[in-house]
Amino acid sequence: MTTALALDTRREDRLGFSEAVLCAWKSVPIIEEALAGFQADGKSALLTRLTKEQLSQIQKQYRVQLDYCEISQTAFFGEPETAVYDSVPCVISAGSSDFPVAVEAMRTLEFYGCRSEPFHDIGVAGIWRLEERLTEIRQHGIAIVVAGMDAALVSVIGGLFRGLVIALPTSVGYGVSDNGKTALNASLSSCAPGVVAVNINNGYGAAMAAIRALAIRNG
Amino acid sequence: MTTALALDTRREDRLGFSEAVLCAWKSVPIIEEALAGFQADGKSALLTRLTKEQLSQIQKQYRVQLDYCEISQTAFFGEPETAVYDSVPCVISAGSSDFPVAVEAMRTLEFYGCRSEPFHDIGVAGIWRLEERLTEIRQHGIAIVVAGMDAALVSVIGGLFRGLVIALPTSVGYGVSDNGKTALNASLSSCAPGVVAVNINNGYGAAMAAIRALAIRNG
Amino acid sequence: MTTALALDTRREDRLGFSEAVLCAWKSVPIIEEALAGFQADGKSALLTRLTKEQLSQIQKQYRVQLDYCEISQTAFFGEPETAVYDSVPCVISAGSSDFPVAVEAMRTLEFYGCRSEPFHDIGVAGIWRLEERLTEIRQHGIAIVVAGMDAALVSVIGGLFRGLVIALPTSVGYGVSDNGKTALNASLSSCAPGVVAVNINNGYGAAMAAIRALAIRNG
Amino acid sequence: MTTALALDTRREDRLGFSEAVLCAWKSVPIIEEALAGFQADGKSALLTRLTKEQLSQIQKQYRVQLDYCEISQTAFFGEPETAVYDSVPCVISAGSSDFPVAVEAMRTLEFYGCRSEPFHDIGVAGIWRLEERLTEIRQHGIAIVVAGMDAALVSVIGGLFRGLVIALPTSVGYGVSDNGKTALNASLSSCAPGVVAVNINNGYGAAMAAIRALAIRNG
Amino acid sequence: MTTALALDTRREDRLGFSEAVLCAWKSVPIIEEALAGFQADGKSALLTRLTKEQLSQIQKQYRVQLDYCEISQTAFFGEPETAVYDSVPCVISAGSSDFPVAVEAMRTLEFYGCRSEPFHDIGVAGIWRLEERLTEIRQHGIAIVVAGMDAALVSVIGGLFRGLVIALPTSVGYGVSDNGKTALNASLSSCAPGVVAVNINNGYGAAMAAIRALAIRNG
Amino acid sequence: MTTALALDTRREDRLGFSEAVLCAWKSVPIIEEALAGFQADGKSALLTRLTKEQLSQIQKQYRVQLDYCEISQTAFFGEPETAVYDSVPCVISAGSSDFPVAVEAMRTLEFYGCRSEPFHDIGVAGIWRLEERLTEIRQHGIAIVVAGMDAALVSVIGGLFRGLVIALPTSVGYGVSDNGKTALNASLSSCAPGVVAVNINNGYGAAMAAIRALAIRNG
Amino acid sequence: MTTALALDTRREDRLGFSEAVLCAWKSVPIIEEALAGFQADGKSALLTRLTKEQLSQIQKQYRVQLDYCEISQTAFFGEPETAVYDSVPCVISAGSSDFPVAVEAMRTLEFYGCRSEPFHDIGVAGIWRLEERLTEIRQHGIAIVVAGMDAALVSVIGGLFRGLVIALPTSVGYGVSDNGKTALNASLSSCAPGVVAVNINNGYGAAMAAIRALAIRNG
Amino acid sequence: MTTALALDTRREDRLGFSEAVLCAWKSVPIIEEALAGFQADGKSALLTRLTKEQLSQIQKQYRVQLDYCEISQTAFFGEPETAVYDSVPCVISAGSSDFPVAVEAMRTLEFYGCRSEPFHDIGVAGIWRLEERLTEIRQHGIAIVVAGMDAALVSVIGGLFRGLVIALPTSVGYGVSDNGKTALNASLSSCAPGVVAVNINNGYGAAMAAIRALAIRNG
Repeated sequence: MTTALALDTRREDRLGFSEAVLCAWKSVPIIEEALAGFQADGKSALLTRLTKEQLSQIQKQYRVQLDYCEISQTAFFGEPETAVYDSVPCVISAGSSDFPVAVEAMRTLEFYGCRSEPFHDIGVAGIWRLEERLTEIRQHGIAIVVAGMDAALVSVIGGLFRGLVIALPTSVGYGVSDNGKTALNASLSSCAPGVVAVNINNGYGAAMAAIRALAIRNG
Repeated sequence: MTTALALDTRREDRLGFSEAVLCAWKSVPIIEEALAGFQADGKSALLTRLTKEQLSQIQKQYRVQLDYCEISQTAFFGEPETAVYDSVPCVISAGSSDFPVAVEAMRTLEFYGCRSEPFHDIGVAGIWRLEERLTEIRQHGIAIVVAGMDAALVSVIGGLFRGLVIALPTSVGYGVSDNGKTALNASLSSCAPGVVAVNINNGYGAAMAAIRALAIRNG
Repeated sequence: MTTALALDTRREDRLGFSEAVLCAWKSVPIIEEALAGFQADGKSALLTRLTKEQLSQIQKQYRVQLDYCEISQTAFFGEPETAVYDSVPCVISAGSSDFPVAVEAMRTLEFYGCRSEPFHDIGVAGIWRLEERLTEIRQHGIAIVVAGMDAALVSVIGGLFRGLVIALPTSVGYGVSDNGKTALNASLSSCAPGVVAVNINNGYGAAMAAIRALAIRNG
Repeated sequence: MTTALALDTRREDRLGFSEAVLCAWKSVPIIEEALAGFQADGKSALLTRLTKEQLSQIQKQYRVQLDYCEISQTAFFGEPETAVYDSVPCVISAGSSDFPVAVEAMRTLEFYGCRSEPFHDIGVAGIWRLEERLTEIRQHGIAIVVAGMDAALVSVIGGLFRGLVIALPTSVGYGVSDNGKTALNASLSSCAPGVVAVNINNGYGAAMAAIRALAIRNG
Repeated sequence: MTTALALDTRREDRLGFSEAVLCAWKSVPIIEEALAGFQADGKSALLTRLTKEQLSQIQKQYRVQLDYCEISQTAFFGEPETAVYDSVPCVISAGSSDFPVAVEAMRTLEFYGCRSEPFHDIGVAGIWRLEERLTEIRQHGIAIVVAGMDAALVSVIGGLFRGLVIALPTSVGYGVSDNGKTALNASLSSCAPGVVAVNINNGYGAAMAAIRALAIRNG
Repeated sequence: MTTALALDTRREDRLGFSEAVLCAWKSVPIIEEALAGFQADGKSALLTRLTKEQLSQIQKQYRVQLDYCEISQTAFFGEPETAVYDSVPCVISAGSSDFPVAVEAMRTLEFYGCRSEPFHDIGVAGIWRLEERLTEIRQHGIAIVVAGMDAALVSVIGGLFRGLVIALPTSVGYGVSDNGKTALNASLSSCAPGVVAVNINNGYGAAMAAIRALAIRNG
Repeated sequence: MTTALALDTRREDRLGFSEAVLCAWKSVPIIEEALAGFQADGKSALLTRLTKEQLSQIQKQYRVQLDYCEISQTAFFGEPETAVYDSVPCVISAGSSDFPVAVEAMRTLEFYGCRSEPFHDIGVAGIWRLEERLTEIRQHGIAIVVAGMDAALVSVIGGLFRGLVIALPTSVGYGVSDNGKTALNASLSSCAPGVVAVNINNGYGAAMAAIRALAIRNG
Repeated sequence: MTTALALDTRREDRLGFSEAVLCAWKSVPIIEEALAGFQADGKSALLTRLTKEQLSQIQKQYRVQLDYCEISQTAFFGEPETAVYDSVPCVISAGSSDFPVAVEAMRTLEFYGCRSEPFHDIGVAGIWRLEERLTEIRQHGIAIVVAGMDAALVSVIGGLFRGLVIALPTSVGYGVSDNGKTALNASLSSCAPGVVAVNINNGYGAAMAAIRALAIRNG
């Protein structure tokens, strides 16, 4: 049977950033085939949602080349890009349970050559934690706001921060939190103007949106 | 055909407050029959969701006895109770679109002998409006928080106010606001501890919950 | 990488009760970091949704300080507050399957210094069980009603009890019980006036709502 | 273009009861064609969900033969069957808003030759109304329980009545009542054993289920 | 802590059939406590959704008294009732995957003293299998129709069988079968008149509805 | 402001059939602009979901060229194609309420040069109506099955007909029929193999699928 | 009764852009009160979702100052800002039915001093229309992609355009298009990396997100 | 207890293709019984969704006769049909994660005697991959398009390919991808005319639809 894989080798020319591999739903042989392709092309690649179990099954020749982060389940195959952006997005998370998704966003930014600054665990239940750090936050041009449950932090930031606000809803919460759907819907229904959202737990996507927004300067 | 109506004439003895009539889904003759029953018993009654059109069709003998508020679609049949509670719940609404539901809550409180204090249009998109009035708000023992869309105000109040917080979600908003379901789910998923909620647009219910909470003092 | 945790150390001043840690979605190191923080501040803390497996992985120095209840998956870190409330909420559960959630509510009340009285397994399928105990129940000022499936008990209590009724829906039931959503929606749609609800299985939240309601006396 | 209609003229032989016409979604000419067909066959027929407006547009020759009930939007075309069943189902409704759906069920029973006994407006919010009439209700073999919102009455009856309990959920209620879905789901999730349900507002269907159940005696 | 259990020991007097224990969501100690109660009262009992794993953990003194059926996960504690009904419901299942749910219904009927006759695997995809057995089926007064996926069999039976048709939807199917919700909704939307439904996979409930319907003869 | 319209004038070359205009959500000026474009190109066009009210507002110069069918809300602008297919799909509808959607499919086939044969009102509630016509139906190569509510007819046909079965669910039905979603989901969950579906009420789409299937002969 | 309105007069200082009034759910007197407030402050304001009917009821003194666009239901009160941004977002719509939402986005951009360039009716059903204009589109830094139904255009643009892609789903479509939810969910599930979305039909929000993104240059 | 199985042995005569066994939800003994039946009849059979674990438990006498494909979880029992169709459907998949579902479709076609041609991993995120192969694709008469997430590929193909387009949505994706429901709904809402869909992950069904369409030639 023919191979199931066709890498988007032209993405960098077209979009300015290289391909990433979403490892969920992929078998280890397919992941290996992708890595072989990147190696043949002399390219680095980002892997997301790579479980520790998948990692352990990857052939050693590829595995040793992977810089793996267990918290975010991301891996760099080859060298990440050196810093190409001078703007530094901030990544604000509402609770420590949202940490892994926030780290996925930060690792993705890092891979594509963009530094970021974290502001963790400053949910609105204890809003003084946000107030203490607001001046710092307002120095940034982009805020990725990582929140599950009610995602109220998204609207509070949206009302206080003038740059681009990217809501990154997480599946943290139970019952009517509905695996992140309430956080997503609340973000999209935000009373603060011009907030945008990505899919639930999509740290990669939030980071790529920031990369795209930074590309506007040249557009 | 026999009558469709059986008033809960014993509610006051049992629960401490008299019956109210939810006029939506009721024909005018059934509403009139209820009013006749209250009149026969010499009782006052609260009517909710009474449209202007229904009002105009009610027989004059009953209509003249109705103190009607168009904004909230509530009517008092007979005299409301004189003030029986010394505690004064506050009713905080996020936007001016939430005003009618807030007024339904306030009118209900008024009918059952409880004053209330409004704080209108102080949504978190411009959080300074809340900060300006926070000291006043914290004087109260109960806060009914009226909000549609993302209902972020519920969580912000929940993190700053120590008394009972009753979320009253409204159907204000479009798209994924989903006629108030997002506001409700966000309230129930609040990161602030111990917030409770009533059904969407249920100003009557939020007020009755406050009345119940005030009854604890004697419980 | 910086720590993901920022404890809400000012909650007690602000709200009158100290922080609790929802252990679901948290890694053991983050839980330990929180415990270290509470210890450093000389504070007690409540832990909820702490699985037996998580417990077993916590470092011994913290684990020995935890008073763990397996049924409700709650733990007290340090001493609970001595009784500060003279009102005694009752916790009424519909079936023995709802027991763990009811115990979460009772343990939370206990931690914050509030006694409670249980009335277990008195669902409306055999309504005589409720009738037998109704006089006792009506002595209380607050009723937390714990029910899954149809949550019919919430409405029955709501029609017979004059104090605050806090519906605590559970995920007990299958098919269209929909993991507790039917119980929640039925509670919010209750024909009994002024019933409030918390999120599905949120025993902690129901207890905190009771604590908030008891604070009104001073409000 | 050929006609769109093919009457199920053999239903009576097959099932023991004649066809009925659901007039919603049907144009007046199609309804007339059906009536012409029944007339040609010398048969009576039941029409359901026939609006007053549709009725007024039906040709006079058919309209004068219709015994129309505006509350339930049902009409008898020709004579209903004379009483063929000696059992008398009871129809219990929770609130006066549920009255029209209850009447649809009763009119359907009447058309097919079955008497019924109504118990209206005895929802569990004021459960004494049910208690007063329970002995009477327990005389019957079948109870059709008509309820919207939380449909708690279904479970209460289900726990007290030994015959067949047919839940007939209605769309009465707002917000999370969800046009009757909560009432339906609560009925299907009932803690009382062996309760069955029909579709929302399907008074016709509940009555036909009773007719089917009465046919068992001969089965 | 007090016990979580209060058996409905008066159910048989009230409803004519004894209590059953839904073992899902129950801990083994609670199940044992229930068995001890039944033993103390000298009563038999039906257990449903008792997994093999739960069974193996039950104390031997109770376990030896259990007549367990693994396919349907039901157990009889003590003797089932001797046949008390002369009517014999039929249980028609659409596919062999629906078999376990069908057996739960049949075992429940057996426990309460009612024989039943199975017609298995006669879904409408090969409708000749139904046609071959239709005459036999039509001998019965009650048909429990067990079907997942599209539940088309329910409507076909509903159009050919004059007695009570109880739809018993199953969770068989994937994608938009939605764990049985499509089968349930299709049953409730049936084009055949007077079909009733129970919750998804609720074999016990379908059987109890049949028992209730058989009680009408005496009603 | 620039025009909002860009006709897909190359569709015929690309796909073998010309463009159609879905008139719902379009203003009359935009529809007119489309018609002007077709006229300028000397092309015929199909209009779907054109209400009588929209029709009456279209400028006379275009309106007189429209062959309008009120039942299906379709119009032919210019001449339909002369018969280009020798295969004749059949269009089978379950009830007379499904008639308008069935006619939309037939009119679309007619416009694109394909005859069709209707089989109306032969739902499975009275399955003899189908049996009588089955031999005829089986002469055809494609069956478009138009059904709302439970859509059981789709599965019955799917089990008896060997050609392509295109389920065309309609929004006929109330309550859990859910505006056609139950009919659609039941069709997609069909126990009959290889049934395909189009969107709810999409008579145009079902016809175009048939046109596509007929193109295979040349493919 | 006190006023329901509290304008966020400090928004411009805080966020860099002035307040807008969402007129849906607002009564005409509240809209007038807002306009009076803006006038008193000497400020311009944007009004969105202002129906023609609301407009006609606004007092003449305010109405004459409104520059109203009927297609997009937007109005400028006072002068819009003169061009402050040198970047020109493009607004790409999939079909002519999406035109009104696209215009809301463009009018919002215009009010806040940002030009935009439209690319209308270039949906992927006739993808040559996109190919013809791709070079032009790629000149821009931000693309607002307006699409209902399947929103496939969002992913196609996302794969070909390197700048910020803001999906603006519309409620165009029927059946499972679900009033825009499918378009929204497809956008959020896009296979193209880094696409962000706003709420359904939220042309205002998409434009404000663009304004925020343009603010990054200074951030 | 009687057997639960009744094979549809007449399917081949009726529909032109033999029965297949969906092994999910079936116990191993029931699968063995089916295999014994096929063997007794001297027939081949297709098994779908047969897990490796089920396979290992099947009695060796049957297991050795199974040609098993682990990727697609399909097995041939006995010989597949020799090629009976001269048309060759193509199977186009959007990503390598969709591979297993695509292979289920191809294996099914193979079993029923139909060759197929795969085009893998050509999703629209890198649309040049599709453009490169479009001429080849357009040689085919039927395209099965396998896609999860946004399923945008379905619409792109639908706009470029004139034959029958069968959308085969997969459950690949997270968050609002909703286990394939977004891909399904987007396919059904496609802006391309005449696209049809099968249930999520139903590779078998897509293949059988192709087989049915190929039967039209003889119809």
